Amino acid sequence: MSYLGKNYHPPGTAPGTLDDSRRGEIEIRLVDYDERDYREETLASAEECMPYLDRPSRTWVQVNGRPDVATVRGLGQLFELHELALEDVLNTGQRPKIDVYGEQVFVVLAMPVHTPEGVMNEQVSIFAGPDYLICFSTTPDDPFEPLRKRMRPPSSSRLRSRRIDYLLYAIVDLVVDAAFPVLEQFGNEIEELEEELLDAPGRDAIARLHHIRRELLLLRRMLWPQRELVSRLQRDEIELIEEQTQPFLRDCYDHSVQIIDLLESFREMSASLLEVYLSSIGNRTNEVMRVLTIIATIFIPLTFIVGVYGMNFDPADSPWAMPELRWYYGYPLVWLVMIAVTVGLVWFFHRKHWL
Amino acid sequence: MSYLGKNYHPPGTAPGTLDDSRRGEIEIRLVDYDERDYREETLASAEECMPYLDRPSRTWVQVNGRPDVATVRGLGQLFELHELALEDVLNTGQRPKIDVYGEQVFVVLAMPVHTPEGVMNEQVSIFAGPDYLICFSTTPDDPFEPLRKRMRPPSSSRLRSRRIDYLLYAIVDLVVDAAFPVLEQFGNEIEELEEELLDAPGRDAIARLHHIRRELLLLRRMLWPQRELVSRLQRDEIELIEEQTQPFLRDCYDHSVQIIDLLESFREMSASLLEVYLSSIGNRTNEVMRVLTIIATIFIPLTFIVGVYGMNFDPADSPWAMPELRWYYGYPLVWLVMIAVTVGLVWFFHRKHWL
Amino acid sequence: MSYLGKNYHPPGTAPGTLDDSRRGEIEIRLVDYDERDYREETLASAEECMPYLDRPSRTWVQVNGRPDVATVRGLGQLFELHELALEDVLNTGQRPKIDVYGEQVFVVLAMPVHTPEGVMNEQVSIFAGPDYLICFSTTPDDPFEPLRKRMRPPSSSRLRSRRIDYLLYAIVDLVVDAAFPVLEQFGNEIEELEEELLDAPGRDAIARLHHIRRELLLLRRMLWPQRELVSRLQRDEIELIEEQTQPFLRDCYDHSVQIIDLLESFREMSASLLEVYLSSIGNRTNEVMRVLTIIATIFIPLTFIVGVYGMNFDPADSPWAMPELRWYYGYPLVWLVMIAVTVGLVWFFHRKHWL
Amino acid sequence: MSYLGKNYHPPGTAPGTLDDSRRGEIEIRLVDYDERDYREETLASAEECMPYLDRPSRTWVQVNGRPDVATVRGLGQLFELHELALEDVLNTGQRPKIDVYGEQVFVVLAMPVHTPEGVMNEQVSIFAGPDYLICFSTTPDDPFEPLRKRMRPPSSSRLRSRRIDYLLYAIVDLVVDAAFPVLEQFGNEIEELEEELLDAPGRDAIARLHHIRRELLLLRRMLWPQRELVSRLQRDEIELIEEQTQPFLRDCYDHSVQIIDLLESFREMSASLLEVYLSSIGNRTNEVMRVLTIIATIFIPLTFIVGVYGMNFDPADSPWAMPELRWYYGYPLVWLVMIAVTVGLVWFFHRKHWL
Amino acid sequence: MSYLGKNYHPPGTAPGTLDDSRRGEIEIRLVDYDERDYREETLASAEECMPYLDRPSRTWVQVNGRPDVATVRGLGQLFELHELALEDVLNTGQRPKIDVYGEQVFVVLAMPVHTPEGVMNEQVSIFAGPDYLICFSTTPDDPFEPLRKRMRPPSSSRLRSRRIDYLLYAIVDLVVDAAFPVLEQFGNEIEELEEELLDAPGRDAIARLHHIRRELLLLRRMLWPQRELVSRLQRDEIELIEEQTQPFLRDCYDHSVQIIDLLESFREMSASLLEVYLSSIGNRTNEVMRVLTIIATIFIPLTFIVGVYGMNFDPADSPWAMPELRWYYGYPLVWLVMIAVTVGLVWFFHRKHWL
Repeated sequence: MSYLGKNYHPPGTAPGTLDDSRRGEIEIRLVDYDERDYREETLASAEECMPYLDRPSRTWVQVNGRPDVATVRGLGQLFELHELALEDVLNTGQRPKIDVYGEQVFVVLAMPVHTPEGVMNEQVSIFAGPDYLICFSTTPDDPFEPLRKRMRPPSSSRLRSRRIDYLLYAIVDLVVDAAFPVLEQFGNEIEELEEELLDAPGRDAIARLHHIRRELLLLRRMLWPQRELVSRLQRDEIELIEEQTQPFLRDCYDHSVQIIDLLESFREMSASLLEVYLSSIGNRTNEVMRVLTIIATIFIPLTFIVGVYGMNFDPADSPWAMPELRWYYGYPLVWLVMIAVTVGLVWFFHRKHWL
Repeated sequence: MSYLGKNYHPPGTAPGTLDDSRRGEIEIRLVDYDERDYREETLASAEECMPYLDRPSRTWVQVNGRPDVATVRGLGQLFELHELALEDVLNTGQRPKIDVYGEQVFVVLAMPVHTPEGVMNEQVSIFAGPDYLICFSTTPDDPFEPLRKRMRPPSSSRLRSRRIDYLLYAIVDLVVDAAFPVLEQFGNEIEELEEELLDAPGRDAIARLHHIRRELLLLRRMLWPQRELVSRLQRDEIELIEEQTQPFLRDCYDHSVQIIDLLESFREMSASLLEVYLSSIGNRTNEVMRVLTIIATIFIPLTFIVGVYGMNFDPADSPWAMPELRWYYGYPLVWLVMIAVTVGLVWFFHRKHWL
Repeated sequence: MSYLGKNYHPPGTAPGTLDDSRRGEIEIRLVDYDERDYREETLASAEECMPYLDRPSRTWVQVNGRPDVATVRGLGQLFELHELALEDVLNTGQRPKIDVYGEQVFVVLAMPVHTPEGVMNEQVSIFAGPDYLICFSTTPDDPFEPLRKRMRPPSSSRLRSRRIDYLLYAIVDLVVDAAFPVLEQFGNEIEELEEELLDAPGRDAIARLHHIRRELLLLRRMLWPQRELVSRLQRDEIELIEEQTQPFLRDCYDHSVQIIDLLESFREMSASLLEVYLSSIGNRTNEVMRVLTIIATIFIPLTFIVGVYGMNFDPADSPWAMPELRWYYGYPLVWLVMIAVTVGLVWFFHRKHWL
Repeated sequence: MSYLGKNYHPPGTAPGTLDDSRRGEIEIRLVDYDERDYREETLASAEECMPYLDRPSRTWVQVNGRPDVATVRGLGQLFELHELALEDVLNTGQRPKIDVYGEQVFVVLAMPVHTPEGVMNEQVSIFAGPDYLICFSTTPDDPFEPLRKRMRPPSSSRLRSRRIDYLLYAIVDLVVDAAFPVLEQFGNEIEELEEELLDAPGRDAIARLHHIRRELLLLRRMLWPQRELVSRLQRDEIELIEEQTQPFLRDCYDHSVQIIDLLESFREMSASLLEVYLSSIGNRTNEVMRVLTIIATIFIPLTFIVGVYGMNFDPADSPWAMPELRWYYGYPLVWLVMIAVTVGLVWFFHRKHWL
Repeated sequence: MSYLGKNYHPPGTAPGTLDDSRRGEIEIRLVDYDERDYREETLASAEECMPYLDRPSRTWVQVNGRPDVATVRGLGQLFELHELALEDVLNTGQRPKIDVYGEQVFVVLAMPVHTPEGVMNEQVSIFAGPDYLICFSTTPDDPFEPLRKRMRPPSSSRLRSRRIDYLLYAIVDLVVDAAFPVLEQFGNEIEELEEELLDAPGRDAIARLHHIRRELLLLRRMLWPQRELVSRLQRDEIELIEEQTQPFLRDCYDHSVQIIDLLESFREMSASLLEVYLSSIGNRTNEVMRVLTIIATIFIPLTFIVGVYGMNFDPADSPWAMPELRWYYGYPLVWLVMIAVTVGLVWFFHRKHWL
């Protein structure tokens, strides 16, 4: 994810300006359904929706990919969508939110998706009216296939028999739940990192940890307002939403609260891991120091001693000049002294619990 | 506890889908009671509850272990339980919450249990209706034996004489209070760790500390919403709960507030211990360094001095070439110089408070 | 203070169970007073209160120490105290709170007391009714003597002329204000520690600092809810409390807010001290390192130079083999080189501001 | 930005005192417009506005630069502006706020501008009345040219056809959106710094990081109240603002919320980077130590060994005095011993993962 | 400032007890004014106010210094001040607050003053009634001279023409604004410290930083409640305050919010500086280590090599015993080897970016 994570117009641009500099391949799928009939089509352009508008059945238009201005404007005119909302559809990276324009509800959602480059926040923008729902998703392939799968069988699925607000719920629920596998992945990464950090942290541990923290931070920027959004959906007197859909939205709200709980505890966990890491660095410095100190402290005095007997004072010149050099047991005596020094130091280190 | 700590369906699954991939051995206990009669049975299947449904007495069905779909669905049909609630019973790891479906109350609780692998959050799910209470607990053995013990004597215990809301209170109270022994255990571990850290921290201290912090974090994820839940129970206009049960629920709420207080102060305490640990690492590095510096700083100049007199300049060649080698008191003089250097350095270290 | 700081029954115990495993010596004092009369007695048992119950004068029963079940139950029956409240009296370590049972008010307070082992939170539990007040205090000696002293003189003290709510205020005020000397003590300890840490931190500084932080944490657990309690007393429509006592309670609330302010700033101050300590450790490591580096860096090259002339190459064998050994000024030249090296290094250290 | 970032009068100065010690070059631009006509002029003094006051068209007076007292007072008298508001216009560095004086709205905004010396907060002060708007901006050049550009074409732009509240919205929107490019810049700087810190942090990394944190802090001081302000504009019953402008203000509020989200995540990111930096310092100390320890630990024992054979004990004097010196293979044997020691130490370091 | 910063009576003292153990020199100034007349006097005792009480003009009694009980009680009786309020006047160090006693308003303010020993919080206590205002200030010299200066000229100053509530506003405003110069001073100190810390932190930097943080903490304890107080003054339905004074109080509230903003950003800034300091310590340790490691790592192997040729093996004894000693180019060869080792190590350090 980029740090800004958002497209914006230069300050001073007129509100509602549409701009398709980032357009790409799109796919428009139309599902027209009611309790008895179900029809699924892939459209070539927005205008082909027209014949379905006057029917009493419910119409779900799904646009995948980054649409061009023409498509968005075409749908906008067909369904009378507000220009500010259309601007938000094209300027992806919006904060999740819900706006009510008359009897129409406009919902922006963020759908986290695991990709090899990290977590991407895809934007899902939904317009829901009395008997239609238009959904734009920036993902190249359609994430809502599971819903159509549930809709296709002629048996009375709830998705088929209920009004458009239930479809809205189903889409919101799917997008909200998409955070669970992403968080599971983070949970696993944190757990792996934890084991490594407590055992023997590698060179890239800090980079990996920082990467996780950063991704969690960017994820959080999206998921908190999403929770607010679901809370409003579940609580508000939005006309479109019928009373019997409320318990389902409440369930969806529970999920989004759990997601926030998980996110926040992962963030705390990773903060705690950083402290584990810092203390493990401190500990290793300590250990390295200890080895150095032990070796140096033992050998430095010994080297001094042997240095003494390397001085060129000659016992022949003066009885004061290292007579030990001439003693019969001089040399072994020096060794005895050196062994005594070593033993003394080892005992000292032992008492200090350094060995 | 695992980091995710929660089972979830793949995003897009229909709400209310029941799935028993984790089912295990279960035990169904039925207690049918009123002020005069008390009957206790172990049932083989959910259907055996049937005869007790029409009686005016209160019925308590206790299901221990991880039930299969059939049992849950059977009880669900008998008592008209909401499908979303049943899904929460099977997908354990739910956030504690309270949902009201008509005259029925659905409560999810988290019961922390100390096991050798750490603290486990068992899920207790309760459906309470006008004269029945169904309680699912993921613990293999029944934690509610103390309640039955209080119910069995024919003397007028409050559990027997009061309505089902008092039984609900008693169960909630027991689950909430289960956190006390767990927190006591944490308190003891922190106190032990504290002593060790202030004295001589071992190698695994940081791992133990991190483990405590992690467990407290996971525990907290459950206990905060539990507090909210009890607060709502005590405050709300839930029809089922009679006014004379309110003081007891208030008492239970006091306990859950105390539990949160304890949890949060343990968390702060362990954060403070981490800082103690980091400073103790710093202190030890300091001490190791000091020993090294003292030894090295004393012997390095001495070794230099003895090195000087190990040079092969010959006083015979020139009067400038180390005439000390020939002096009568040359060697003792060198020692005097070396002793002076040592004394000077020791004095210097003393003034610096390093000795 | 212990970390749990609270007594609790095993989960599943019936509410209102009284248990006196921690009972000790108690003292029961009775004060019966109105504007004209004042009588003070020490009672042997709870029953002796009986004669004072029906009089129109106000009755204050003070129980000091840890009472047994019999006394508590006796008083409970005489004054019709709620069983859950009695349980809280015996299970000391309760969170400060206020409960209203009909026309009776039950208040639990925490009174911090400085003892040689640290700060102890004594529990003061008060039942106040229309013309009586029963106060249990876990302190062995009576902390409320100053109040009786103010009451004894026949002159019209406010304590004598006002109703029982003023006595309740006076007790709450005394308990709340008891935090001031304790906090003053903490303030002094922090100030001392601050001076030491900024000057020359001793070995036990971190332990003392941690001890202060821990005590403040435990103290805070009690004082925050106490503030809430006084706020409720001052604000609430508690029937017992007359309007003319409100300004006094407001004053008491101001005190409890100040206490929290002090507590929180002491906590921040001690956190800041920890950082001072950590940076002082870092600084000392730095200084030790610097001395080692200076000494080693100066003498290591010198030792190398003298080592060179200790090699047993013989200028007699080859003109290439250390002819300096034979030069007339060879030895002084070597010293000149060594002095130059030393001067150069000292200049280098000076430029680095290490000297 | 300076730390105080605010001009203030000495305490005790009468409120409404105007003072132009910081006045500079100013430019007064007047735009008089309605749906059909559009006129743009540059005025020499405030009085020249007069002829436009009585017309039914809307009048926009734009003052760029730091005005003198005369200009401000002149405009103040012409448009009946409150003296406290005028003081805020001159004492720049005000906190963004909105004040309502009768039918007049006074808005203070902060416009962050990237300059080579860092981010500057320019103050934009707006008075909006029924058919006029006076805007003071401390920027030397006019930031509102994009708006005039949208207004000039005779085609029916919304800016021309709507009332003065839409112009107010357009200005607020432009000022709010000015934070996006500034934040984008910060995002890029943080991203660069992140790469550098994870790779090889340079000497000035900490200074740059601190600089970013400081700028973000100062920026935040302005942007939080700005969010509040826009929230009030969008929510409040300010008479001036018509209902059809509300969706635009809501859109502007969404932007200001996103700006705060970005700001706060940048702040967290930079805090996380600091920890990365600290751990990278720790890691480098570690690495330096390891090299020192390896080299020293290998050579110190070897130097001791060669020192031993440099002692002047003569095997001729005693069979105990280093007879190895006379052995035929003595010298190679010493080398064998030294190689063995080296190999042993290398193996030891290898096992410790130091090599 | 002392850490407790507050005087308190021993717990259990009767409320309203007056005690003047800290009394000092005082000065009583009386200003009696209305739109036409202005009279200023210095009084010898409280009683001398008497003649001004019954006049219709406004009376402002200013008491500077620490008054004795007699003065306070005298004024208390003259103006019917509440005894609890009088206690707060004498027990300085009160938390800023506002109390309403009937038609009288009692305001306690904290006025930060820069002194050589640090910031002192002087207490300003104000009683305002319908046509009088009594103000006690613990400062020895009068801080309100600027107000009298504005009042003296006969021209119609707002202070003269408005009621007593405007005088109250003017005093509150002056006390609130007194924080600006103090904060400016802190801003400068932080900026200086910042430069020093980023450049070359001296030995006392941490002490200075800690001192700033401590002062800011103590200052904050006073300024937060002061903000609350002004907010209440501006918002509340305090009878005394007329509607036309509201905009002025709103302005004063804006100032106190800005003061809190500044304070909090200074606190964050100083926290960030601490981290800069800690990382600069880490960096210096690093640099010291690097110099040591480079020198030691280069010379230790060289010293080993020269040590080898200092061994007393005699090539005369065996062809295996250091025949190099006898080679014609033996000595230069040894130097070549040593130079090669040095060059290799320098290259190694270069590759590691240590040079």
